Amino acid sequence: MERRQPPQTEEGWYVLHDFRSIDWDAWRDAPERRRERAIEEGMEYLTSCEHVDDADEGESATFAVLGHKADLLVLHLRPTLADIDTLERRFEHTALAEFTERTDSYLSVTEVSGYMSQDYFEEGETADTGIANYIESRLKPELPDSDFLCFYPMDKRRGPDHNWYELPFDERADYLSNHGEIGKDYAGRVTQIIAGSIGFDDFEWGITLFGDDPTDVKELLYEMRFDPSSSRFAEFGQFFSARRMDPTDLDAYLAG
Amino acid sequence: MERRQPPQTEEGWYVLHDFRSIDWDAWRDAPERRRERAIEEGMEYLTSCEHVDDADEGESATFAVLGHKADLLVLHLRPTLADIDTLERRFEHTALAEFTERTDSYLSVTEVSGYMSQDYFEEGETADTGIANYIESRLKPELPDSDFLCFYPMDKRRGPDHNWYELPFDERADYLSNHGEIGKDYAGRVTQIIAGSIGFDDFEWGITLFGDDPTDVKELLYEMRFDPSSSRFAEFGQFFSARRMDPTDLDAYLAG
Amino acid sequence: MERRQPPQTEEGWYVLHDFRSIDWDAWRDAPERRRERAIEEGMEYLTSCEHVDDADEGESATFAVLGHKADLLVLHLRPTLADIDTLERRFEHTALAEFTERTDSYLSVTEVSGYMSQDYFEEGETADTGIANYIESRLKPELPDSDFLCFYPMDKRRGPDHNWYELPFDERADYLSNHGEIGKDYAGRVTQIIAGSIGFDDFEWGITLFGDDPTDVKELLYEMRFDPSSSRFAEFGQFFSARRMDPTDLDAYLAG
Amino acid sequence: MERRQPPQTEEGWYVLHDFRSIDWDAWRDAPERRRERAIEEGMEYLTSCEHVDDADEGESATFAVLGHKADLLVLHLRPTLADIDTLERRFEHTALAEFTERTDSYLSVTEVSGYMSQDYFEEGETADTGIANYIESRLKPELPDSDFLCFYPMDKRRGPDHNWYELPFDERADYLSNHGEIGKDYAGRVTQIIAGSIGFDDFEWGITLFGDDPTDVKELLYEMRFDPSSSRFAEFGQFFSARRMDPTDLDAYLAG
Amino acid sequence: MERRQPPQTEEGWYVLHDFRSIDWDAWRDAPERRRERAIEEGMEYLTSCEHVDDADEGESATFAVLGHKADLLVLHLRPTLADIDTLERRFEHTALAEFTERTDSYLSVTEVSGYMSQDYFEEGETADTGIANYIESRLKPELPDSDFLCFYPMDKRRGPDHNWYELPFDERADYLSNHGEIGKDYAGRVTQIIAGSIGFDDFEWGITLFGDDPTDVKELLYEMRFDPSSSRFAEFGQFFSARRMDPTDLDAYLAG
Repeated sequence: MERRQPPQTEEGWYVLHDFRSIDWDAWRDAPERRRERAIEEGMEYLTSCEHVDDADEGESATFAVLGHKADLLVLHLRPTLADIDTLERRFEHTALAEFTERTDSYLSVTEVSGYMSQDYFEEGETADTGIANYIESRLKPELPDSDFLCFYPMDKRRGPDHNWYELPFDERADYLSNHGEIGKDYAGRVTQIIAGSIGFDDFEWGITLFGDDPTDVKELLYEMRFDPSSSRFAEFGQFFSARRMDPTDLDAYLAG
Repeated sequence: MERRQPPQTEEGWYVLHDFRSIDWDAWRDAPERRRERAIEEGMEYLTSCEHVDDADEGESATFAVLGHKADLLVLHLRPTLADIDTLERRFEHTALAEFTERTDSYLSVTEVSGYMSQDYFEEGETADTGIANYIESRLKPELPDSDFLCFYPMDKRRGPDHNWYELPFDERADYLSNHGEIGKDYAGRVTQIIAGSIGFDDFEWGITLFGDDPTDVKELLYEMRFDPSSSRFAEFGQFFSARRMDPTDLDAYLAG
Repeated sequence: MERRQPPQTEEGWYVLHDFRSIDWDAWRDAPERRRERAIEEGMEYLTSCEHVDDADEGESATFAVLGHKADLLVLHLRPTLADIDTLERRFEHTALAEFTERTDSYLSVTEVSGYMSQDYFEEGETADTGIANYIESRLKPELPDSDFLCFYPMDKRRGPDHNWYELPFDERADYLSNHGEIGKDYAGRVTQIIAGSIGFDDFEWGITLFGDDPTDVKELLYEMRFDPSSSRFAEFGQFFSARRMDPTDLDAYLAG
Repeated sequence: MERRQPPQTEEGWYVLHDFRSIDWDAWRDAPERRRERAIEEGMEYLTSCEHVDDADEGESATFAVLGHKADLLVLHLRPTLADIDTLERRFEHTALAEFTERTDSYLSVTEVSGYMSQDYFEEGETADTGIANYIESRLKPELPDSDFLCFYPMDKRRGPDHNWYELPFDERADYLSNHGEIGKDYAGRVTQIIAGSIGFDDFEWGITLFGDDPTDVKELLYEMRFDPSSSRFAEFGQFFSARRMDPTDLDAYLAG
Repeated sequence: MERRQPPQTEEGWYVLHDFRSIDWDAWRDAPERRRERAIEEGMEYLTSCEHVDDADEGESATFAVLGHKADLLVLHLRPTLADIDTLERRFEHTALAEFTERTDSYLSVTEVSGYMSQDYFEEGETADTGIANYIESRLKPELPDSDFLCFYPMDKRRGPDHNWYELPFDERADYLSNHGEIGKDYAGRVTQIIAGSIGFDDFEWGITLFGDDPTDVKELLYEMRFDPSSSRFAEFGQFFSARRMDPTDLDAYLAG
């Protein structure tokens, strides 16, 4: 068999989903002074990340995770892996870190592929401004203020019957174009960040969805599950649900 | 292939299954005074949850879990994720939390789908009262007083041979209608709460069954396993077995 | 496809396999007095369980587990889940529990199915005494004194090629009848307890085999693996090997 | 389908692979006196095992495990499970055990099957001495002094397409006979112990290979992977690599 | 079926990927003096490894790992397993080890196979110098100074539909030859070390990629995924991402 044509891709910011659980036992036992310092340094760290004090550009946001998988999610987007590495380690040097443990993480990089924007990749910089702006918005996305976040990693299937990587390019492009149509019905209600992670982490992509109403996200994903690009080709990892949190609410969060 | 028609869905209360294990070593070692405070604050928390003091509506109940997976299950149903988030964290601020660890959890939302109630979804609010009441009872279910609870998450298969998400709508509706017939034979003996979790947690649904006689639940599920909607399309996660527990029996529970 | 006919089943005693590991570090460090109390209370608990002091009927037995999965297995059979729940928690209140951790468990209920005893299920109580006694012995089994125990949970396959739950009733009955023939060759050497766990734990059945010579158990299971009901339809979980232990030998066991 | 004919088997010594990791933090912190005692008691235990002081016959050997899965492997072969059980627990009562944790284990029994030695099984004790000696050497193997050990558990596949347990006896015998040919090319360089574990542990067999040059073991296994009995029918568990260690080198080992 | 012809292989240096996580809680709590000693001994150890003070030849390098899977990766290549074993244990005797835990590891050996260099294997030592040098560079690779490292283990599939080990030799050689073409397009940007691990660790190969721009590695692997040798035959384990770190930067690394 011939090797299938891969899509061209362009990468933007590196993305780290940094999941932490609170050691509530330690928190309850800690003297007031240590708690105050933890809150203060935690707020400083999170606020500084959200202000992107550490780099020329990027985005960060804080979330409260539902369920036992984690308590906090700090989401970082930055131009270099060095930026990401530094942010991850800086957390460990705050007094808040004493009360947290890393329970999970996901490393990826924002990605635009030639399936969607064949013209852009062919014409390069001279492509029209509308497309260029669109692509810029996907490579360097502004995080929405939505209340709800859903994150999951995913692969495309390489099974004997359905093998994404053995489909002709045009067929894949069609699948993804149809798939993209679903998202348009949710415009204004659900926003997504698609980041590639081949060579970076255990799955091929990390998908982050944002919406004010969690059931909009649920309905979008349910509808997508009936789309052949998902029903035949998607393999999902764990799903994480979280609520946006202002760093200044850290004390309220920790106070219960 | 064409994208299959997804069912319409309506969502009700968010559901958290919050599984905790008791740290029996810490419990045995604790001085009487700390134990008493743990029981007192634990009872207060659980009772307050069951009274729904924290929200306008919802339900909560407490269960003793069999086996090593957990010891306690606190089940919460509430109108918003914020409610759920607050309840989960409030537990951590009770003196009882010192003696527990979160071992598992499941996040979902009660769901009614257009497979069962096509008319309702087509006619909306003007549907007849019987159906409306039925749907209300599934979206905002009253927890039964049954002694036994069984919880498990599940997916519908997306394999190359049997792929639920590539079946025509009517075929899926038939499967589910036949499937539902089995449950009717157990009316009055087994009650269920069906909650969707696509985009919320690792499986697509979380099923909670209630019954006074555990063997009724076993026989219902065994019978269902021979139904094509299960035999061909169901993928199950872990199963949890638990017994209903009155919050005021917490001291007896912890005393052995 | 039509729904296949499920077998009728009758359930007897609930079964808990309660696996514990010894915290040998804590044991070595403990002062003599605490060790003695742990042995004393452990013996009392185990002996009392084996005497079924807590219920009108049932069986319990103690085993030393080989390998790293666990050190002790306490096997309980009782008429109600409440009995099982109480026994599980009572262990935690012995001084022995300080030196153990729950590493695994399995919850099931003894089961007889209509595959084997169609007549019994059709004629009910009026069936002949031989069959009734046989069924009674499977629902309320007497634990043999054998030296060796093997426990494993199992499922019947629901794959696209071989799907147990889509076979006609008679075909399943034939498979199981032939399967049962193998066991008869081992009569007097290997005894089994079959317990159903659909809705109770992660697999569909829990199988416990007893024999004085472990190689009899191995040969029986090897032979069964060539039987179509296993070769095509069985999915196995973990296997546990253990040796029967008299509660009064607990001190010798812990002394090495 | 007819039940396929199982091979006759004969079992010899029980085998325990007892994997332990060193708690290096505790080791570094321990006062000299405790370290000395740990080394002394560890050496005594290991030497005594290797001398088979505890039983009439058997073999034991000590290995240093590469990588994070474990640090020590103590391999025991003994005539009874009681012997194995005692050795496993005796380790816990040495001062060395304070610095180790059980991370894994595997229980099996040396096995000769009728595939290879049909004559032996048919003629029993009267078989010719050559075969009898050969079988004795596999049931009660002498551990070679080789530097390198490789251990892995394995199953034979029971898939819908390739199902070992549904092949006719002669076909299986042919597969295994051809498979065995490969090993002969490595005679003098690689030695193996084949032990059955159906009913004893999570896989069907445990394979232990010995050789002075690790690449001989690698090349043998690579070559075997192209043999149909492996390419079609083998399912492997984890692989462990270890180096033979004299018990008297325990102090050098622990000193780094 | 006939046994397929295995490729000849030649092995070079043994490879250990030694993954460690930092215990940041312990680090923050440690007095300055202990931290200084940890940094000093850590630097000494890592520098000495990189200088290959312990052996006649080999390579070592240090990396900072992104995400929660680990914090440090120490990569060792040495002529013997004894060298590797010693290095692994020597780490445990540094004061730095007190602040680390082994979270993962991978053991393999650099490998050249007859697929690529049939001539070399046929003519042996007398092969032309160009090939001999090429092979030497793969068996005893010089670690590049690149900023980014990607490591993952992999298997070739042995499924019923696509079974690498049942392909004729020439077909496999063609697959790999085409596969290798992709890498050539990335010459100068991405370097790789291919090491075999059959009989040594849980997968068949360990692949380590190096590049200054992480997106080059991502694009190479994405392109390869469309190549039949990957799309049909590759099964991947976990992926690890890391950044090269000079041992003398250990204090900066630990200081955040």
